[in-house]
Amino acid sequence: MEGCSNKVSRDSHPMDSIINVGKNTIGGNKITIIASPCSVESEDQIVNIAESVKLSGATFLRGGAFKPRTSPYSFQGLGEPALELLKIAREKTGLPIVTELMSLAYLARFIDEMDIIQIGARNMQNYPLLKELGRTNKPILLKRGISATIEELLMSAEYIISEGNEKVILCERGIRTFEKYTRNTLDLSAVPILKRLSHLPVIVDPSHASGLWWLVEPLSKAAIAAGADGVIMEVHNNPTKAKCDGEQSITPNKFDKLMKSLRAIANIENKEL
Amino acid sequence: MEGCSNKVSRDSHPMDSIINVGKNTIGGNKITIIASPCSVESEDQIVNIAESVKLSGATFLRGGAFKPRTSPYSFQGLGEPALELLKIAREKTGLPIVTELMSLAYLARFIDEMDIIQIGARNMQNYPLLKELGRTNKPILLKRGISATIEELLMSAEYIISEGNEKVILCERGIRTFEKYTRNTLDLSAVPILKRLSHLPVIVDPSHASGLWWLVEPLSKAAIAAGADGVIMEVHNNPTKAKCDGEQSITPNKFDKLMKSLRAIANIENKEL
Amino acid sequence: MEGCSNKVSRDSHPMDSIINVGKNTIGGNKITIIASPCSVESEDQIVNIAESVKLSGATFLRGGAFKPRTSPYSFQGLGEPALELLKIAREKTGLPIVTELMSLAYLARFIDEMDIIQIGARNMQNYPLLKELGRTNKPILLKRGISATIEELLMSAEYIISEGNEKVILCERGIRTFEKYTRNTLDLSAVPILKRLSHLPVIVDPSHASGLWWLVEPLSKAAIAAGADGVIMEVHNNPTKAKCDGEQSITPNKFDKLMKSLRAIANIENKEL
Amino acid sequence: MEGCSNKVSRDSHPMDSIINVGKNTIGGNKITIIASPCSVESEDQIVNIAESVKLSGATFLRGGAFKPRTSPYSFQGLGEPALELLKIAREKTGLPIVTELMSLAYLARFIDEMDIIQIGARNMQNYPLLKELGRTNKPILLKRGISATIEELLMSAEYIISEGNEKVILCERGIRTFEKYTRNTLDLSAVPILKRLSHLPVIVDPSHASGLWWLVEPLSKAAIAAGADGVIMEVHNNPTKAKCDGEQSITPNKFDKLMKSLRAIANIENKEL
Repeated sequence: MEGCSNKVSRDSHPMDSIINVGKNTIGGNKITIIASPCSVESEDQIVNIAESVKLSGATFLRGGAFKPRTSPYSFQGLGEPALELLKIAREKTGLPIVTELMSLAYLARFIDEMDIIQIGARNMQNYPLLKELGRTNKPILLKRGISATIEELLMSAEYIISEGNEKVILCERGIRTFEKYTRNTLDLSAVPILKRLSHLPVIVDPSHASGLWWLVEPLSKAAIAAGADGVIMEVHNNPTKAKCDGEQSITPNKFDKLMKSLRAIANIENKEL
Repeated sequence: MEGCSNKVSRDSHPMDSIINVGKNTIGGNKITIIASPCSVESEDQIVNIAESVKLSGATFLRGGAFKPRTSPYSFQGLGEPALELLKIAREKTGLPIVTELMSLAYLARFIDEMDIIQIGARNMQNYPLLKELGRTNKPILLKRGISATIEELLMSAEYIISEGNEKVILCERGIRTFEKYTRNTLDLSAVPILKRLSHLPVIVDPSHASGLWWLVEPLSKAAIAAGADGVIMEVHNNPTKAKCDGEQSITPNKFDKLMKSLRAIANIENKEL
Repeated sequence: MEGCSNKVSRDSHPMDSIINVGKNTIGGNKITIIASPCSVESEDQIVNIAESVKLSGATFLRGGAFKPRTSPYSFQGLGEPALELLKIAREKTGLPIVTELMSLAYLARFIDEMDIIQIGARNMQNYPLLKELGRTNKPILLKRGISATIEELLMSAEYIISEGNEKVILCERGIRTFEKYTRNTLDLSAVPILKRLSHLPVIVDPSHASGLWWLVEPLSKAAIAAGADGVIMEVHNNPTKAKCDGEQSITPNKFDKLMKSLRAIANIENKEL
Repeated sequence: MEGCSNKVSRDSHPMDSIINVGKNTIGGNKITIIASPCSVESEDQIVNIAESVKLSGATFLRGGAFKPRTSPYSFQGLGEPALELLKIAREKTGLPIVTELMSLAYLARFIDEMDIIQIGARNMQNYPLLKELGRTNKPILLKRGISATIEELLMSAEYIISEGNEKVILCERGIRTFEKYTRNTLDLSAVPILKRLSHLPVIVDPSHASGLWWLVEPLSKAAIAAGADGVIMEVHNNPTKAKCDGEQSITPNKFDKLMKSLRAIANIENKEL
């Protein structure tokens, strides 16, 4: 990857890429904080969480409408109605929306109505989907597959960029290892490596990586200290009743406190939050 | 998975599933041998290989038309023209055709013209694709993702079966580990485990697992000895000139010799080849 | 490793090494079967098992006297008294004894009284121990560490051989991966690779690799089909009451039946059992 | 581990353990910085490095005298003469010495002359060695094995503590995964997990984890932000000429600059450096 002419490579684009989404900016000296209940459950829930994370300084709202689940019998998200609820939350808070696309069937709607399209770990090598996204002008949040190498993640980003869309944000979210205490093993080395090899912004998802809410705080701080451009984390006003992934969600109160710590570390790194 | 009511589980279907494809049978006491050049390159090449593996006893022909590749700049297969060449090879040899589907865009054509649809490792958790295949009546060869657990493979099969299509063949093709000598680590324990947990046929792909042609022979024999219902292997008449994966392909001569060994082991297992 | 001058390499010693232990021979065209209760529990137990496996055709008896255990509070073997019991079992059956050495403190006694010294996975890179063994004339059964690469296993054997002792038997016993169904993932590709890179005999331990008694049969058969020089397996006359690892032990009855299958596969490979 | 009575567990000892080494303190609100050339090469080299890291604020000096190496033919350290050189460097700088013990043969000398005994990753499960160390009163720096789970690391510490020696410092130094860009994958989640499950101090070794000098800075900062009690890192005055591991060593200049960043993060965490 070093010394090569791929469009994701820093050699082809020495300056950091900065991606504008509405009034927000991702990359450069800005720290992006994407707060999210794992899945959108109701208008009350999503608006409530959105309002509280906005007050604490979140810059984006993520919410799952379509949820890829290992079992066909697990809750798979509210689907299209969730998109409507996310739009209501955006209207009330001004937070732009990130949500996951699993199928080309919804692409047009996502382009029209959502702000950032997330491609989940399971679809990181769904090349027909990546190519199609490369023909749009929409910012894409591309998550690393649970067993993808750093180079494979970059080559998947290349699938998007090679078709013309340069607005790709990379996301480290844990890799599969033998260690069982955490759901996956967050690979923070990936952050400085991706920043060295590529010009794209890199954010970190400690919630999905660890699966444990009490690891979100130390790992978020570590991510910013390692040079990440942002963090995406699960926040839920009632984690024990969350329809999925409650165990990895922090409360709005903890989120507020964490934002202060992250701001202090961001300042050391000469970044703004 | 044990003691559960999933449709893939042996509890829900104690007898082995047997899948009929034309005059061929997969599962039960039959050993299935799928021979394949990694990608279809020309009429001469595919017909040539098909004729020679047919003589040695292969029961299916696989050939890549659409190839998922890590880099967008690598050779991605001949695409639709390859489907025509596969049909010619089938007509000349009678061997039914297995080929990989990556996108719903080609589903109708695959249903009409191909015999078994392969879902590759990268798409094992492409749930919208799996569900759509579940609404067809086509045999599906479902490959294990390189970092999928055995349970996740079975749950992906459940995505297909839960929609109505019970013709699923599972394929172990190596998992990603720290060992670097082989491309992936073939997990032969998965064979008896899958056979115990599920009623579906299980085949093994030693070529993609190891990436080394000289491992295909010992690993194929081991697969049959471990109880696999078949083997899928790369055969190329000119491995050093293959457009991809030549290093893992055996020659038709070696294939012929290997078939004799496999037959001997199959007999010990009271199976026919 | 290929093309190098290490003493373990086949380049330095093109013919298979054959290791003589009393009247027994390991390597070449002989299949070695080492049967073992995980730990020696009593005279009755070890003699009983030894007599029954001898009848079925086992060629060595293994029994744990000193057991390395993850917790300091787990049963750690009977220690020295177990060595006496193993000697009684040897006297009654003629089976030579394999047992694990963990500390140089017992080296002299092991050299005098035992037939093969096993070095367990946890000590594969205990270099001072390996070097000391290299200065003896005793056959060493060297197990692969749970996360050792094939090359690292060979380099550990080199530590022994470089000091003068060429009687090293390599043992594949599973590597640590993300898959949770089995305790470790048996890497059968290691068998033909080790045989290609090195002249040393290679045996396989499906019991410790899988941790599940019902996988011992298919994996033993697969090991022989893949070219292994032997198998080491746990046999216990009362698995449910075994002091450790009962879940991975087969009964003498199952062992007897399995020996017949292994013999059939050995014959195909032109080997004797 | 939670809710258990092991001596390593926080349940058995709710307050952080603080370990005194001469005038230095490890744990509590102190950040420990252990600087080290991978191996001791000459008096000039070790004194030179010791003096410069002392000026920048390092609190300990580590230097390899006995080096465990995968190949028996690689440079294995200067051995006993290196211990003398380390003592000279200590005399000139006042920095206490950390060095690795591989064999009980040198235990008495290490107890008399060294300040902290390091047990390397390869010996994390060398139980006879751990038990013997448990009968001393010496601080032990216990490194996590490259494929040890967090629980296994804690149980290895238990081997030491159960014999009476409570002065154990845990060290996360990377685990073996499929990712090839770094030598190992630093598992920073282990830091807050170990701090939650146990009362022992936890330090991080980014140099051996990554194998790349330019990752030492971001990973050290991340380690402190994640709550580590210290960092151990390779520093070499002439990395390109280092006898081993030069690629992972930073220069004294970079070390000095890094210390300033670590101090800033330590302050946010209310810790002293």
